[in-house]
Amino acid sequence: MIIDRFLAEKAKKTERALAEYIDAWQGAPGILLEAIRYSLFAGGKRLRPALALGAAEIVSGDDTVALPAACAIEMIHTYSLMHDDLPAMDNDDLRRGKPTSHKVYGEAMAILAGDALATMAFDVLAQAGDLRVIQEIARAAGVGGMAGGQVLDLQSEGKEISLEQLRRLHACKTGALIRVSVRSGALLARASEEQLEALSKFGEHLGLAFQIADDILDVTGDEKTLGKPIGSDEAKNKSTYPALVGLDRAHRLADEAADSAVKALEPFGSEAGIFRALARFVVERQH
Amino acid sequence: MIIDRFLAEKAKKTERALAEYIDAWQGAPGILLEAIRYSLFAGGKRLRPALALGAAEIVSGDDTVALPAACAIEMIHTYSLMHDDLPAMDNDDLRRGKPTSHKVYGEAMAILAGDALATMAFDVLAQAGDLRVIQEIARAAGVGGMAGGQVLDLQSEGKEISLEQLRRLHACKTGALIRVSVRSGALLARASEEQLEALSKFGEHLGLAFQIADDILDVTGDEKTLGKPIGSDEAKNKSTYPALVGLDRAHRLADEAADSAVKALEPFGSEAGIFRALARFVVERQH
Repeated sequence: MIIDRFLAEKAKKTERALAEYIDAWQGAPGILLEAIRYSLFAGGKRLRPALALGAAEIVSGDDTVALPAACAIEMIHTYSLMHDDLPAMDNDDLRRGKPTSHKVYGEAMAILAGDALATMAFDVLAQAGDLRVIQEIARAAGVGGMAGGQVLDLQSEGKEISLEQLRRLHACKTGALIRVSVRSGALLARASEEQLEALSKFGEHLGLAFQIADDILDVTGDEKTLGKPIGSDEAKNKSTYPALVGLDRAHRLADEAADSAVKALEPFGSEAGIFRALARFVVERQH
Repeated sequence: MIIDRFLAEKAKKTERALAEYIDAWQGAPGILLEAIRYSLFAGGKRLRPALALGAAEIVSGDDTVALPAACAIEMIHTYSLMHDDLPAMDNDDLRRGKPTSHKVYGEAMAILAGDALATMAFDVLAQAGDLRVIQEIARAAGVGGMAGGQVLDLQSEGKEISLEQLRRLHACKTGALIRVSVRSGALLARASEEQLEALSKFGEHLGLAFQIADDILDVTGDEKTLGKPIGSDEAKNKSTYPALVGLDRAHRLADEAADSAVKALEPFGSEAGIFRALARFVVERQH
């Protein structure tokens, strides 16, 4: 399938660059780099890098310029997973079918490796050479974005929240970083304001579609394909779309978000075909 | 005393700017900002901001240009304390005479508030508008700097380490951020290569002097003035200068480092007087 090839190509490019960045890091304790590599190369989908690279390609025909941002965002995403999995947070033992960082390296190292990875992301980002991209990514990962969303998530555990609250939670926790992945690629490829606006909207709707699909997979997915236990959201008293609106309506909402993502791409022609396919893939994927 | 006035002035300027930055942060959960403010305004000495602002002033006569970097570095320093204090790390209940973040807000929030603060530091830094400064600060706080040093610290707990290993540990854990504070101020004030080199050396020696003095204070200090229990390093089986070389030689090493810091300032005239005084202050302070 075209989308599998696209994701595989972008993942390969990203992973090669990530490995090169880490190889060049000076003066680090070996065990720290080992812990970082363990989580960073645990076989993620590399969706965010693919969005950054894909956006740059759609805008300019070349994705190279977005590679530092793609890598930095994947580092930020990975550090957030390492910290989310900690006993004080979600207390998860498995991630992508492998023991989580703190299970292998201990809690202190999982905290520090996450901290270090978050920090080094900005070293990598500085190499992209665009202050606006640095600022947008910091904000998408910061108090009003990913970290803030994680706080909302913790606060809502075991509580009844509204669909609107759940939407805000996800817009912060996962949406902001997905959106900024697309924006970074577009900005680094020197997108026009109109292109940037269209791709931003695409990223926003795609992020929502992705999250609803994620919630659905936690209920209907296959444990092996997913790499984590089924029903873990429910077990942790997390609010999810299926729990809040039922499975049927959740499916409908995910499809609608994917439709909106595709619609946002109207200013583009066939060069955005891969992002249209990606929007479908996000709601139809099995892991 | 001149140095008290200097530190008080720079602290006031930094705290005003920090408060303004945080007030401008959009879309953050209230409790997250509360936790961030709790630790950020817990009454630190603001040594690192004073170094950044002081270096800019020595180079150009004006410290304003270094204010974003001064604030960003203080944010990074504060987040590192929040994480260091966690049960999985140093497990400290008190910091500067107040309950630590996780004691007040819980572990999950202390992790997330630290994460968010580390991230927002780069939003603030992007406003300083200098990619080299962003990269240097990321590296000083990253795998080969502060986070790496913290790993070395954890690994050496309860072990016999050499003076050389202790020096490397501190050069990473506290030295790198102190050094980059001085460098950031100098770089943002457009220091010449010679000025930058001299101020870097100053920062390096000052960092060492500061750390040895810190180790000494943990043994000889007054609990009230210090805001934390005396002998806590020993209780945690941490290697310290007094433990490794005895109190007398530790004092001598601290004085030597302060001398070297002063000597590094030779290319400067009277405009660097405040940094000379600061080198003395660092080894003579009581908290």
